[in-house]
Amino acid sequence: MSAEEQEHSPDDVQQHLRMVQELLARQRLGEDLANRQEAGEGILQREHLEEMRELLEGMHPADIAFVLEALPLEDRLFVWNLVKAERDGEILLEVSDAVRESLIETMEPEELKAAAESLDADELADLAPNLPPEVIQDVYQSLDPEGREQLRAAMSYPEDTVGALMDFDMVTVREDVTLEVVLRYLRRFEELPDHTDKLFVVDRDEHLRGILTLENLLIHDPEMEVAEVMGTEPVISFIPEDDAGDAAQAFERYDLVSAPVVDSEKRVIGRLTVADMVDYIREEGEQEILSNAGLREEEDIFASVWDSVKNRWAWLAINLVTAVFASRVIGLFEGSIEKLVALAALMPIIAGIGGNSGNQTITMIVRAIAMGQIEPSAMRRLLRKEIGVALFNGVVWGGFLGAMAWWLYGNWQLGVVMTSAMTLNLLLAASAGVIIPMMRMRMGKDPALGGSVMITALTDSGGFFIFLGLATIFLL
Amino acid sequence: MSAEEQEHSPDDVQQHLRMVQELLARQRLGEDLANRQEAGEGILQREHLEEMRELLEGMHPADIAFVLEALPLEDRLFVWNLVKAERDGEILLEVSDAVRESLIETMEPEELKAAAESLDADELADLAPNLPPEVIQDVYQSLDPEGREQLRAAMSYPEDTVGALMDFDMVTVREDVTLEVVLRYLRRFEELPDHTDKLFVVDRDEHLRGILTLENLLIHDPEMEVAEVMGTEPVISFIPEDDAGDAAQAFERYDLVSAPVVDSEKRVIGRLTVADMVDYIREEGEQEILSNAGLREEEDIFASVWDSVKNRWAWLAINLVTAVFASRVIGLFEGSIEKLVALAALMPIIAGIGGNSGNQTITMIVRAIAMGQIEPSAMRRLLRKEIGVALFNGVVWGGFLGAMAWWLYGNWQLGVVMTSAMTLNLLLAASAGVIIPMMRMRMGKDPALGGSVMITALTDSGGFFIFLGLATIFLL
Repeated sequence: MSAEEQEHSPDDVQQHLRMVQELLARQRLGEDLANRQEAGEGILQREHLEEMRELLEGMHPADIAFVLEALPLEDRLFVWNLVKAERDGEILLEVSDAVRESLIETMEPEELKAAAESLDADELADLAPNLPPEVIQDVYQSLDPEGREQLRAAMSYPEDTVGALMDFDMVTVREDVTLEVVLRYLRRFEELPDHTDKLFVVDRDEHLRGILTLENLLIHDPEMEVAEVMGTEPVISFIPEDDAGDAAQAFERYDLVSAPVVDSEKRVIGRLTVADMVDYIREEGEQEILSNAGLREEEDIFASVWDSVKNRWAWLAINLVTAVFASRVIGLFEGSIEKLVALAALMPIIAGIGGNSGNQTITMIVRAIAMGQIEPSAMRRLLRKEIGVALFNGVVWGGFLGAMAWWLYGNWQLGVVMTSAMTLNLLLAASAGVIIPMMRMRMGKDPALGGSVMITALTDSGGFFIFLGLATIFLL
Repeated sequence: MSAEEQEHSPDDVQQHLRMVQELLARQRLGEDLANRQEAGEGILQREHLEEMRELLEGMHPADIAFVLEALPLEDRLFVWNLVKAERDGEILLEVSDAVRESLIETMEPEELKAAAESLDADELADLAPNLPPEVIQDVYQSLDPEGREQLRAAMSYPEDTVGALMDFDMVTVREDVTLEVVLRYLRRFEELPDHTDKLFVVDRDEHLRGILTLENLLIHDPEMEVAEVMGTEPVISFIPEDDAGDAAQAFERYDLVSAPVVDSEKRVIGRLTVADMVDYIREEGEQEILSNAGLREEEDIFASVWDSVKNRWAWLAINLVTAVFASRVIGLFEGSIEKLVALAALMPIIAGIGGNSGNQTITMIVRAIAMGQIEPSAMRRLLRKEIGVALFNGVVWGGFLGAMAWWLYGNWQLGVVMTSAMTLNLLLAASAGVIIPMMRMRMGKDPALGGSVMITALTDSGGFFIFLGLATIFLL
């Protein structure tokens, strides 16, 4: 096979998608024709079906998953039915949660069982939350004792721990053999586990003694013993209870490809690979972006209106509550607004800029906390800095807005109130932006969660209260 | 060395940070004592310095980078000066841009030159934007012709392309040799390039013919020829002009560890590794979160007030403009507000919920576009769905708010206006949330950029205009 024939570029998947879409369009056209002419029915379709099947067969499971995600529900199920049954399992693993649900809904228990049985224990554990209990039960029964134990273990660890992400594919060797023996041992394999860049060196009881990288195996004299070659670098290992985010940071920091997972006795029980970590990092980033925008989870873009409503309503409900509260704060000052209607036009500026500024602060602090670079003791120092920034912005931008209010409404006192309210609201935003995440960290909670909603609620209601309050005291 | 001695866990870096901080505290205490007693000066300090130096020497460059980032400027520079000069280069590569600048500012051109000379061409290219031109010039002069060519190539590709991320470390083999020959060839290496999971099979003119994975090298009979063993899977290769984001998605999708980069003639010119891709994915995610919050770049948490102000002012300025515009929209209706002051209290609800809802839509669409799963032709379908969601929310939440306004102000017409305005503003938000990113995509621009600001500006001003306009027509 020449390089030309094997040629494969990152844009392929887009081309595949277009080819599938074209075939689907021709398929529909063929159906229309057949219906209208009531003849020749089936011939054209069968040709297209065959073409589509061949196309799908040549595609990587991840590419099929991509195509399925990009198709509207009806087309998606049509294509899904053309995929060979034995590939169902690996494709279900690759699609997003929302799309996985839409596919599983249409499958018979027997099909699901067959798909599940084609998977490894750790993959099965990933899929299990989406499967009906009776299917899991059946599959569990069909496993050998080791597989059952692995499945039980993989499912017992909470999401976001190393235990939930580890696999059980690994190659172990003893330290008292020569590299030549290891090389011969490896030749007995049909294939090595994905991402094998190192072998785990263990003793008789599976205790981790060190690692033998493929590099060291390859560059050293085969007469040397494993013990002589291993351990020039420290072994980085994890326990199943380790936080997955910490593990991902370690993979990133030390450029790991795979790493052993050990139990409390240092026995090797599993393995983490960079592929799991890449997925984890991507998903965490996505999750943060989605939840910042108030989306509960990644949405199937072709989801029904009702599914979308469910995915988004919680955030809208929370915002409704905070908006109504802010509205009632304004309600307290209706008398002042009636006397000086300029207040109504100016107050959203104070609230809005406060919210933006607070979100800048909290985002910066939350990111630094997530990287493990802030300790609770740093709070005073950070608070001092953020207050400095807020004072500067308050005086400069607030001063500018004050001047504008003066010019617009010919009332210099209004300008002074505007500048003061802006400065005070920015100070409120800065303090809350530091204190909310730091407090959550001290309480051992996720500092990222809900901080943005809280700070916006605070700077909205607080901004209205400060501005209208100052105006009521000094202008009326 | 036993496993105990080598033990290394993902929490180590936090412990290192605490140890450094403790030594710094003792150091300062020692200085204080020395100053006060004016005797014994230096002895204590020297001990601490020695301890700190040893600690740093045992640390991974990425860990030193982590500690430097977590220390306030003064301590950071103190620790930086204790780091051995020959490690400067690799540590500078690991720290964040903001911290890198703070370190480079304090270094002499000679030191910088020495640090830069310890790096590979691709690493040097990463560092170059932060180095003074005369240092780059000097380093360039000191390179051999091949190194100069590589540095020139690496610096010539725009950021966010494969060319800017590739390295030049790779091992190539010919297809007509046996695996035994390859094994013997590898034993002549002192070490293999990081993340070598495959060797690139090339012809006499460096054209890519296929790949030989270390797995295939290890599991097959050494008597077999490379050509027999390579190419059981398609070769995924990149060209330097490929988008780095597409490459990262390909790495994630196909679980790659390394991949060749070829020129237009299919000659191998470099290599991408998963480590670069992990960094890229992480940075892209961070960048999106930061820019959503209006931060230009990652901030050194111990940056000066002035540096922070610079990082944040652009966003605040834009928001100021849009807020002032919205304020002027309200100003148009001051007469109406004077007559019915309830409008002032209710209008921020309409604007706020519209903004939240629009941000949900645009975030969802932008993510799907980024994944390559939306084509321009899908716009009508998506628009239809989002309008459905908006209508539903408008009737349900808007109806609820209308009832509340009726109850609060005893004015049922006000309630009807509230419900209608809410529904209309949600429709505006939904349409803009689909149309803005789709239009930007059609114009070949980044759909993520600035969409959130635009949609918030639109739903603020639009919300005020719709609500106050309807109220003026129907209530006054």
